[in-house]
Amino acid sequence: MTRTIVESRSRTEAIGFDEPFCVIGERINPTGRKMLAAELEAGIFSTVEADALQQVACGATMLDVNAGVVYNSNPDPNLTEPPLMRKLIQLVQGIVDVPLCIDSSVPAALKAGLEQCEGRPLVNSVTGEEERLETILPLVKAYNVPVVAISNDDTGISEDPDVRFAVARKIIERAADHGIAVQDVVVDPLVMPVGAMATAGNQVFSLVRRLRTELGANTTCGASNISFGLPNRHGINSSFLAMAIGAGMTSAIMNPTRPQEMEAVRAANFLTNNDPHGAEWIRHYRPPQEMSATDAPVRARRRRRRAR
Amino acid sequence: MTRTIVESRSRTEAIGFDEPFCVIGERINPTGRKMLAAELEAGIFSTVEADALQQVACGATMLDVNAGVVYNSNPDPNLTEPPLMRKLIQLVQGIVDVPLCIDSSVPAALKAGLEQCEGRPLVNSVTGEEERLETILPLVKAYNVPVVAISNDDTGISEDPDVRFAVARKIIERAADHGIAVQDVVVDPLVMPVGAMATAGNQVFSLVRRLRTELGANTTCGASNISFGLPNRHGINSSFLAMAIGAGMTSAIMNPTRPQEMEAVRAANFLTNNDPHGAEWIRHYRPPQEMSATDAPVRARRRRRRAR
Repeated sequence: MTRTIVESRSRTEAIGFDEPFCVIGERINPTGRKMLAAELEAGIFSTVEADALQQVACGATMLDVNAGVVYNSNPDPNLTEPPLMRKLIQLVQGIVDVPLCIDSSVPAALKAGLEQCEGRPLVNSVTGEEERLETILPLVKAYNVPVVAISNDDTGISEDPDVRFAVARKIIERAADHGIAVQDVVVDPLVMPVGAMATAGNQVFSLVRRLRTELGANTTCGASNISFGLPNRHGINSSFLAMAIGAGMTSAIMNPTRPQEMEAVRAANFLTNNDPHGAEWIRHYRPPQEMSATDAPVRARRRRRRAR
Repeated sequence: MTRTIVESRSRTEAIGFDEPFCVIGERINPTGRKMLAAELEAGIFSTVEADALQQVACGATMLDVNAGVVYNSNPDPNLTEPPLMRKLIQLVQGIVDVPLCIDSSVPAALKAGLEQCEGRPLVNSVTGEEERLETILPLVKAYNVPVVAISNDDTGISEDPDVRFAVARKIIERAADHGIAVQDVVVDPLVMPVGAMATAGNQVFSLVRRLRTELGANTTCGASNISFGLPNRHGINSSFLAMAIGAGMTSAIMNPTRPQEMEAVRAANFLTNNDPHGAEWIRHYRPPQEMSATDAPVRARRRRRRAR
């Protein structure tokens, strides 16, 4: 059974077929968040701190950290991203103790993040593009960390799922050439918006099944892409997550502060027998009055014990 | 591609792999509904009428009709169920035009229902018990209707999914002996409560996949059984439905008046490419202001036309 081990300073998590779904919090990312980008350029980190704390409180098992701010003062990300990545990782691992996912398209920022990060972070990401493969995989090997493999290559993102499967296989094989085992490659089969491509859902479900059974690989995705441009996105996202977990997906980069999506993840954990005795489900959704009723005898016993 | 055809007086529906999920409304059933049972014994049918109208308005594609009242005045269901079944079917098909599912464990009530029912109803159900097979299948053949096949037999309900699969196969084979084709057998793989049996979800998903790929059979289930005894049942039910549809389930006997469950069904239809262009999804969940914006040009055109 494939298990991808990730670690923070003191906490070890496994992404795996027999593990609860790994929720990678997506919020610490300035892409599409103008206010956050402006704050980061100005050296203000209160939003990042709040996002880190809130996402973990809501149930994130890992946090994605992306420092992709295009500075108004300096448009070269090769210069600006590495120091900001260092700063963000230092900050986040100072206030929460979950493994991190270092997210950048700038190799120097990934390297800076790896230098700064305690434990065993996940690198996000390598693609099937030749130049990326030969830049990122040696870094991943040098730091002995797992990596997200996005299934596009030099020809772009194929709409044919067989091509995306072949790209994923190529990355896994190339990783092996670099001495990186398959359990350290977490494949992102690429989620298209179902509003634009009618087969988007079916493609992901069938790719996840194949990646798991034929290649033994863990999987992840940017879950909310599926509902791009549609009304009631949380309704689509939550069913998509449940169905993807049913097909064998083992992690997603998603917004853990959304109750409906997290409910679907918790239900799917329970329904795939990855929440023993439904303990997590019951802990989250037991009505308050039942809690008092159940807890009352414990409190009563405690009082009695203290009284003796 | 397997398609089970069901009909009301004037409407034809197909249960099938490439069809929107068939939602069979469960409400017209006195089991566990004391008030309704008392009303039916007293000859009061206002609740049944309201349940029929509401379920169809909420999106039920078929309605289950169960007349299993244990009369205080006469405890023999062989005498009381057939006339009540006739009455209920007459009533329901008088006010809504969806195919019906005639639900009884009393063969005489199934026969009475078949005599009364217009179109092509679904018979609910036969099991793998010898005596049931040889009583129900000839009736199903005589009326040329489809039947729900519940995968238990004379030894009871097995906790082993392989045994339940074998029972389903036996029923399909026996149906063939009676001249009933596989597309007229809708298998219920039996849903256990996940709170009592940790593998209940996985069992259903894997059975549905096998029933579809190995036997080419449509499937159904009593969906809400999965969450029996647990808090926040609708959260479990809705993820269960999405995951079951992802695994290939084609219908369920469920409560269509629950918005969360229906949202999951609609999302799963969209995500399995059985809601072309997301038309149903958008129709249900488009915000009112967007509707006005989109509809405005149409109204404007109409006004112009009228003005000429």
